[in-house]
Amino acid sequence: METIPEPSRRRLVCLMQLLRQYKAEHITSPEISSLTGWKDSLVRYDIRLTGFCGGVSNGYGVKELLAAVETALGIAGESGVKKCCIVGLGRLGAALLDSSFFEGTGFAVAAGFDSSVNRTEILRSTFPLYPASRLETVVPVEKIEYALLTVPDREAQLMADRLSRCKIRGIVNFTAVAIAVPEEIRVENVSPVTALINLSADR
Amino acid sequence: METIPEPSRRRLVCLMQLLRQYKAEHITSPEISSLTGWKDSLVRYDIRLTGFCGGVSNGYGVKELLAAVETALGIAGESGVKKCCIVGLGRLGAALLDSSFFEGTGFAVAAGFDSSVNRTEILRSTFPLYPASRLETVVPVEKIEYALLTVPDREAQLMADRLSRCKIRGIVNFTAVAIAVPEEIRVENVSPVTALINLSADR
Repeated sequence: METIPEPSRRRLVCLMQLLRQYKAEHITSPEISSLTGWKDSLVRYDIRLTGFCGGVSNGYGVKELLAAVETALGIAGESGVKKCCIVGLGRLGAALLDSSFFEGTGFAVAAGFDSSVNRTEILRSTFPLYPASRLETVVPVEKIEYALLTVPDREAQLMADRLSRCKIRGIVNFTAVAIAVPEEIRVENVSPVTALINLSADR
Repeated sequence: METIPEPSRRRLVCLMQLLRQYKAEHITSPEISSLTGWKDSLVRYDIRLTGFCGGVSNGYGVKELLAAVETALGIAGESGVKKCCIVGLGRLGAALLDSSFFEGTGFAVAAGFDSSVNRTEILRSTFPLYPASRLETVVPVEKIEYALLTVPDREAQLMADRLSRCKIRGIVNFTAVAIAVPEEIRVENVSPVTALINLSADR
């Protein structure tokens, strides 16, 4: 299949999340349009990119469409939950300790890390919290694949380097710093400021 | 100027943040490469898209390159800080009350909203917190242009509708829900789960 352009890929990720929660058996492109705000024609364009051709007059079968989107995104048929960790338990990292964020999503937080032992002892969570010095031990043993990076900006690159050496697959970067990682490691930059700049930039 | 493709645009936003904090007078593409992890050739490709042609043997002038990137992104020469608000002051929203996130970024949080008056009275911040019922009054009066949406998922669409009616320019969506907004309003989906799915999806 040809590569799906980045904007379509991002919309398909949202569509997948929507379909996973959708209760009816069928959904039409105008219905998707009204739930997402994307134009009807854009919805059909994105769906065509997945190679799905099961659209009929009463709409797409939700189950079949979801399977097609998952396949196109390369996350179909994956059983088992993917493990991630939270690195940095300041206010933002601590806010993510609420595991209801991750329920039913295919991801689970397996560990939290902070350089302050005080924090790792005081904060409560349904998964273990460790001093940052144990990162290199815990990440491989727990088979953690992804990290949510919520350390202060000045520690961002250092922790990104340490996570890279642990062969993590990807980092969700909540810091305002551009982190450098080896090519095979993916980064999603989601700091509030980066998001605001993205919103306000011309398109 | 031709439209900049989405992946390049996102990298240019990161490059802009990097250059704003960069202390030296010149920077080379290998230096940018080592600070970001992007290939040297990709860095030069992105910079060419801005129309900047001032690269010389000892690198780009940082000030000139920054100006070119800002112009290409349509955020050059803007004086004045853009105002945003935080909608939803649960754990995640409350974590964003730390105004150091926004210092020197060109954005400032002007208000926080929550449906619980208890929360708006107890939480501390350097800007005013209001009951959600005052959203439609405060947003236009304060000329708030952007919103960080940190409400529980079940309230996401309702609050997105209310923000849309206030003619907000863009929403940073921290919820796991795909929100539908009118076409002229932009949305950045940055929930931890959306980011994790984006990381784990094929490219």
